[in-house]
Amino acid sequence: MAGRYDRAVTIYSPDGHLLQVEYAQEAVRKGSTVIGLCTTNSIVLGMEKKNVNTLQEERTVRKICMLDDHVVMTFAGLTADARIIVSRAQAEAQSHRLNFEKPVSVEYITRFIAQMKQKYTQSNGRRPFGLSCLVGGFDEDGTPHLFQTEPSGIFYEWKASGTGRSGALARAHMEKHADEILASADKPMATLKHVVRTLVSSATLNQNQLEVAVLEHKQPLRMIDHQVVADLVRDVHLEMEEEVKQRTRKTPRP
Amino acid sequence: MAGRYDRAVTIYSPDGHLLQVEYAQEAVRKGSTVIGLCTTNSIVLGMEKKNVNTLQEERTVRKICMLDDHVVMTFAGLTADARIIVSRAQAEAQSHRLNFEKPVSVEYITRFIAQMKQKYTQSNGRRPFGLSCLVGGFDEDGTPHLFQTEPSGIFYEWKASGTGRSGALARAHMEKHADEILASADKPMATLKHVVRTLVSSATLNQNQLEVAVLEHKQPLRMIDHQVVADLVRDVHLEMEEEVKQRTRKTPRP
Amino acid sequence: MAGRYDRAVTIYSPDGHLLQVEYAQEAVRKGSTVIGLCTTNSIVLGMEKKNVNTLQEERTVRKICMLDDHVVMTFAGLTADARIIVSRAQAEAQSHRLNFEKPVSVEYITRFIAQMKQKYTQSNGRRPFGLSCLVGGFDEDGTPHLFQTEPSGIFYEWKASGTGRSGALARAHMEKHADEILASADKPMATLKHVVRTLVSSATLNQNQLEVAVLEHKQPLRMIDHQVVADLVRDVHLEMEEEVKQRTRKTPRP
Amino acid sequence: MAGRYDRAVTIYSPDGHLLQVEYAQEAVRKGSTVIGLCTTNSIVLGMEKKNVNTLQEERTVRKICMLDDHVVMTFAGLTADARIIVSRAQAEAQSHRLNFEKPVSVEYITRFIAQMKQKYTQSNGRRPFGLSCLVGGFDEDGTPHLFQTEPSGIFYEWKASGTGRSGALARAHMEKHADEILASADKPMATLKHVVRTLVSSATLNQNQLEVAVLEHKQPLRMIDHQVVADLVRDVHLEMEEEVKQRTRKTPRP
Amino acid sequence: MAGRYDRAVTIYSPDGHLLQVEYAQEAVRKGSTVIGLCTTNSIVLGMEKKNVNTLQEERTVRKICMLDDHVVMTFAGLTADARIIVSRAQAEAQSHRLNFEKPVSVEYITRFIAQMKQKYTQSNGRRPFGLSCLVGGFDEDGTPHLFQTEPSGIFYEWKASGTGRSGALARAHMEKHADEILASADKPMATLKHVVRTLVSSATLNQNQLEVAVLEHKQPLRMIDHQVVADLVRDVHLEMEEEVKQRTRKTPRP
Amino acid sequence: MAGRYDRAVTIYSPDGHLLQVEYAQEAVRKGSTVIGLCTTNSIVLGMEKKNVNTLQEERTVRKICMLDDHVVMTFAGLTADARIIVSRAQAEAQSHRLNFEKPVSVEYITRFIAQMKQKYTQSNGRRPFGLSCLVGGFDEDGTPHLFQTEPSGIFYEWKASGTGRSGALARAHMEKHADEILASADKPMATLKHVVRTLVSSATLNQNQLEVAVLEHKQPLRMIDHQVVADLVRDVHLEMEEEVKQRTRKTPRP
Amino acid sequence: MAGRYDRAVTIYSPDGHLLQVEYAQEAVRKGSTVIGLCTTNSIVLGMEKKNVNTLQEERTVRKICMLDDHVVMTFAGLTADARIIVSRAQAEAQSHRLNFEKPVSVEYITRFIAQMKQKYTQSNGRRPFGLSCLVGGFDEDGTPHLFQTEPSGIFYEWKASGTGRSGALARAHMEKHADEILASADKPMATLKHVVRTLVSSATLNQNQLEVAVLEHKQPLRMIDHQVVADLVRDVHLEMEEEVKQRTRKTPRP
Repeated sequence: MAGRYDRAVTIYSPDGHLLQVEYAQEAVRKGSTVIGLCTTNSIVLGMEKKNVNTLQEERTVRKICMLDDHVVMTFAGLTADARIIVSRAQAEAQSHRLNFEKPVSVEYITRFIAQMKQKYTQSNGRRPFGLSCLVGGFDEDGTPHLFQTEPSGIFYEWKASGTGRSGALARAHMEKHADEILASADKPMATLKHVVRTLVSSATLNQNQLEVAVLEHKQPLRMIDHQVVADLVRDVHLEMEEEVKQRTRKTPRP
Repeated sequence: MAGRYDRAVTIYSPDGHLLQVEYAQEAVRKGSTVIGLCTTNSIVLGMEKKNVNTLQEERTVRKICMLDDHVVMTFAGLTADARIIVSRAQAEAQSHRLNFEKPVSVEYITRFIAQMKQKYTQSNGRRPFGLSCLVGGFDEDGTPHLFQTEPSGIFYEWKASGTGRSGALARAHMEKHADEILASADKPMATLKHVVRTLVSSATLNQNQLEVAVLEHKQPLRMIDHQVVADLVRDVHLEMEEEVKQRTRKTPRP
Repeated sequence: MAGRYDRAVTIYSPDGHLLQVEYAQEAVRKGSTVIGLCTTNSIVLGMEKKNVNTLQEERTVRKICMLDDHVVMTFAGLTADARIIVSRAQAEAQSHRLNFEKPVSVEYITRFIAQMKQKYTQSNGRRPFGLSCLVGGFDEDGTPHLFQTEPSGIFYEWKASGTGRSGALARAHMEKHADEILASADKPMATLKHVVRTLVSSATLNQNQLEVAVLEHKQPLRMIDHQVVADLVRDVHLEMEEEVKQRTRKTPRP
Repeated sequence: MAGRYDRAVTIYSPDGHLLQVEYAQEAVRKGSTVIGLCTTNSIVLGMEKKNVNTLQEERTVRKICMLDDHVVMTFAGLTADARIIVSRAQAEAQSHRLNFEKPVSVEYITRFIAQMKQKYTQSNGRRPFGLSCLVGGFDEDGTPHLFQTEPSGIFYEWKASGTGRSGALARAHMEKHADEILASADKPMATLKHVVRTLVSSATLNQNQLEVAVLEHKQPLRMIDHQVVADLVRDVHLEMEEEVKQRTRKTPRP
Repeated sequence: MAGRYDRAVTIYSPDGHLLQVEYAQEAVRKGSTVIGLCTTNSIVLGMEKKNVNTLQEERTVRKICMLDDHVVMTFAGLTADARIIVSRAQAEAQSHRLNFEKPVSVEYITRFIAQMKQKYTQSNGRRPFGLSCLVGGFDEDGTPHLFQTEPSGIFYEWKASGTGRSGALARAHMEKHADEILASADKPMATLKHVVRTLVSSATLNQNQLEVAVLEHKQPLRMIDHQVVADLVRDVHLEMEEEVKQRTRKTPRP
Repeated sequence: MAGRYDRAVTIYSPDGHLLQVEYAQEAVRKGSTVIGLCTTNSIVLGMEKKNVNTLQEERTVRKICMLDDHVVMTFAGLTADARIIVSRAQAEAQSHRLNFEKPVSVEYITRFIAQMKQKYTQSNGRRPFGLSCLVGGFDEDGTPHLFQTEPSGIFYEWKASGTGRSGALARAHMEKHADEILASADKPMATLKHVVRTLVSSATLNQNQLEVAVLEHKQPLRMIDHQVVADLVRDVHLEMEEEVKQRTRKTPRP
Repeated sequence: MAGRYDRAVTIYSPDGHLLQVEYAQEAVRKGSTVIGLCTTNSIVLGMEKKNVNTLQEERTVRKICMLDDHVVMTFAGLTADARIIVSRAQAEAQSHRLNFEKPVSVEYITRFIAQMKQKYTQSNGRRPFGLSCLVGGFDEDGTPHLFQTEPSGIFYEWKASGTGRSGALARAHMEKHADEILASADKPMATLKHVVRTLVSSATLNQNQLEVAVLEHKQPLRMIDHQVVADLVRDVHLEMEEEVKQRTRKTPRP
């Protein structure tokens, strides 16, 4: 019966759902996994990396963009939609700097993106953006913030979140280790390892399938060196094997 | 047969219903419960709190917004829709201040929200807002008012009302205790307790699932401390158990 | 077969009906009953009152609005639609005062409302207003007028009429007692009683379910005191019982 | 199969019909009967009168309007549509007076109405006007003219015509008596009687169900006194009975 | 299967047809027959005359209009559509006179009409004009021209053509007698007789069902006197009977 | 299944086709055949001639138009569509002359036509032009060019091409004789014969069914005299018979 | 079930796909193969050549266009769509030169094309461009870049890529020989051979079915001479045969 109510964003199903918005969310769930962490002084983003051809420029495949010097965005879902969102948000950030002589706050630009998404869920002849965004960056006073927006236009602030194919698993994994993550929020290497462990264990990625980026206050975005990532992946694998062993040991033989 | 008349807000069913508006109301009935009380000198709002992740910023999850210094709004339904309503109402309140050099009255801004909702029930290519709002605040002379608007664009003023998943139950509960509620309208703690009791008994929430906010004249919005809420919840539970016991006692054993 | 021709106001059924307009009329027939009387020097409106919660502000539940100092409107049907009609009519009345330096006549503002309704029956992508209005008031020379408009945009002037759930019954009842009503058109109390009797007998309302308002020339709208209404209801009930008895007496026992 | 081609004025059926226009004509055929006569110095209109309630203002029920001092219109079909046509035609007549410093001719204003109707038969998202109009009046030189327009936008000039429920019968009746009608075109009472006889015999109306209006050059519209109409009706009935008798007499008994 | 491709002018059927345009042509084929002849110094138009009521003004029933002093148009199809075409063409002719200080050529105004028709075959939300036009007149140098346009927007110039119900038959008849027609192109009476014979034999009309009009250079349009037409019809009938007899004689009895 | 994807130019079928564009091409394939040759100093166009009535002006039946003094166009498909294309291209050529003080190049005006066609394949509410055009003419330096555009908006330059009912056959025929055609590109009579032979053998036309036009640099368009064409047709027929004989002779009797 | 969700770009299927965009990609997969290589100092494009008629101007058949002096584009898919993209990109490049007094970068103009494509995937009443583009050229500092955009609006940078009918095979072939390709990126002849070998082996084209173009910094586009291409094709064939032999030799006879 869904079929009767899912042809336009402008109609509700009898039980109050906007099915086209939910299908757009499905496009997000098909996207590659991305996660974000907000530490005491940085935003750390981990991304599932598509198999890049030797002949392909890796830079253009990356799902990570600066919205302004101090705000970075990654996303899961339709890449072409993302480019539209990014270019409008960049323009808004520029215009904000010109009009108010100061940079946008992270919440301001997130709200801008979220309202743009909401509009596309209420007008006929348009479709919702098939896109979930992680927006991270620094307010003028240097405090970092991380937000996530959905196709419906809702957004929340997070200390750590994930989206895309294994987004739910990643979030669950981080929630489980929330204490450790929050505790090490001021230790860069520990944070990197949390990001790597989350991706490795929830999306079962190997060292070539993941990428990590770090944004620090008044610093350019830094892609973590492939070797560093590879080492972290190896460490995580060792730890995971160790854990399995210990769990096996604890289980008494019958 | 409904299926034939429920694809657009611009058609009536043969028995005179606007089914898309009713489905939008269904989206409201799926939303988390909120209630509001208008005392002699304050607006008290009680809200069902979603399970917040440890890693999630609680602030952005809250379904409560200031429309101006003296008007607060909470809602049940589609959060993204709410953000649109809020941001337009905020702009209207600002513009009113500029043009008339005085703040909007609570009824004025409610009427603004309600007409915006009605428009979306009469034009093709748009859908009704999936949103029921509780708008509370103070007129210039300091008298508090509480209004509720629905997706259809109707609105009423209340001393106490509720909406969302358990909205009807909450309203029934408060109606039943109307005398006590009105009698204690000038006693802050008693009012808080009424709010807590209503949420606990109609939506069966525990101390972590509810939040209470108070707006007083010329004061910023105050979120009631979690401990205070927890204590009230405990008291309410004790009272409820006591009631059950008394009722049991009164029922003579056969 | 109706189903094929009732999806838009812009198509006729093969037998020349505009079914969407008729369904809007159905929304009116679902509305609470209102009646109006035009006496020699006043407009008297009687309204079925919805069950008001103790916690609800009665004022905002009332289906009665001033369009200008000298014109009052009540209605049956979709309340949110009514608010739109009312606010546009108020604006028109204001603008008329400014442009012509005199108040609108009752017919002028009725015609304005009726044409607005008609437009919504002839344009695609809009739905007819689900609203029947009673518009009463005074022309500049002090003569009172009472008009009724329907969703189709037709309007007529009446000495007394009714609309909504029991509108047809009320009209029939008043038509039956037309002579008495016209005879007592200059006796305020008698007129009030006619209004009460009509509502009580056609819509079978009790004293708490009805409200009466009176507009006199150059006077503010006056809601009749609840006690006065209650007394009238009691008198009417006594008279009705008496009538029944007499009828019974006249019928000879077999 | 009609059903496939009758949902929009913008499509033809395979045999070249515009079905929505024909359905609008059906709305006309459901309207109350009106007839018009153009004498040597007057326009005489006869109208089927709806059963007016004692409490209804007869004036607003009348389907007769002045488009300007010298042009009168009556109609069969949707009354709300008529009001739109009337108010636009009145505005056009006013504007013509201002721009050209002379009144519109009867043909000019008829053509204006007819083109307005045609437009609504060729644009999507609009429906044809459900209205057939009789437009009568005087050109500047005092010659009277009577026109009839249909929902399709066609119009013709007539010495006498009729439309609405019994329009075809009335026209046939007048055509049968065309010689008498034309012969008595300068005798007011005879013309009135023709109008009455036509309505009585084709629409089988009694004296309370018909109304007659006369427009003479440089005179205000005159509604014929009810008593005069009643007398004419009685005369007509007597004559009709006489005719029946004579016919019976002529038929030889077997 | 046609049914799938004939709901809009903006779609082709799989075999490349625009079915709505063909259905509009069908509306033309239902119209009354008209024919036109272009002689060396005049345009002669023959028209099937609808049964005019005694009470109807013959003038307004005539399907013949001047587009300017020197151009005349007749048509088959929807009369209301024709009025629109005529009034726009008249305006264009006027505007051309003002802008270029000379009258339009016959081809210019035909092209104007044809393009207007074409536009209505290519835009959604509009329907093709249900109209075939014969446009005849004189260029500035006095040479007469006769054009025919169809609903699709095509147009051709003719020495003689016909359209409407019996248009194809009339054209065939004239084509068969093309030599005689061209030979007598400078003999007014012979030309009139050709027109009458064509209508009588292809549309089987009697003397009351046809009308003939002649436009000569710098002369007003002249309707041929009814008696002249009647005499021509009688002559034609005699000749036709004679022909039949001769053919019978030639056929040897078996 | 095609039926599901062929109702609008704005949807693709699952295998990537735009069916409405293909159906428009079908309208072209129903059109009368036209061919074009680009010689070293002229454009020669051959056209299938519809059976012209004796009473029809041949000029207006011709499917050949000058877009400017130096560019000629012929076409296959919907004639009314062609007129629109022609008149817009003529306006563009005029405007180009005014703005740039030199005539358009043949490619420029072809590109203009092609883009106009493409636009009608990508916007809803419009249909593709049912038209294939051959556009020939001279650039400023006197070099001749011949282009062909299709309903989809594609265009190519040709030395010789054809379109319409027998367009594919004509093209195949010319391709087969490409060497002869190119070799005789500077011999006018030989070129004319190629055109005639192509039409005669691919579309099996007789001498009355074809027309040939020649455009030379800085010369007006020249229609080849009917007698010349007739002689060429006779020659071609003789040659064709001769060929058949030779082929028969070569085939050894069994 | 796809059929329910593939009629508009503005709706998602329940599993989050935009089917119309995927069908447009199908139109690309039907297009002729093109490949591109970005060497250290040039862009080399190889294109499958359609069978060109002897009488067709090869130039207009070529699917290769300069967007500016320093940027070249080739494509697979709908040629008419390509022309629109090309002409808008050319205009943008011109306007960029005027406004910023320097040429566009290759990424800038690619992004422009990609956003134009994305817009056509999100608005009702439009269809996605059926076009995959290879855009190659030089930035101001002389570094060459090669980008590929798809109907959805996504784009990536490549050292070597291909699209169209055998695009996937070509890409796979080049990926397999990535090392050789990158190693010889500064040897013009070797690069040409890579392009030829890729087309020959993946699309199995012969020497007449392929074309190669080279763009070098500050040089006009150079089409590689047919003989050079033919020699390369012959060499490639020899090498391929040799390879087959060697592989056969290595396989030991049983």
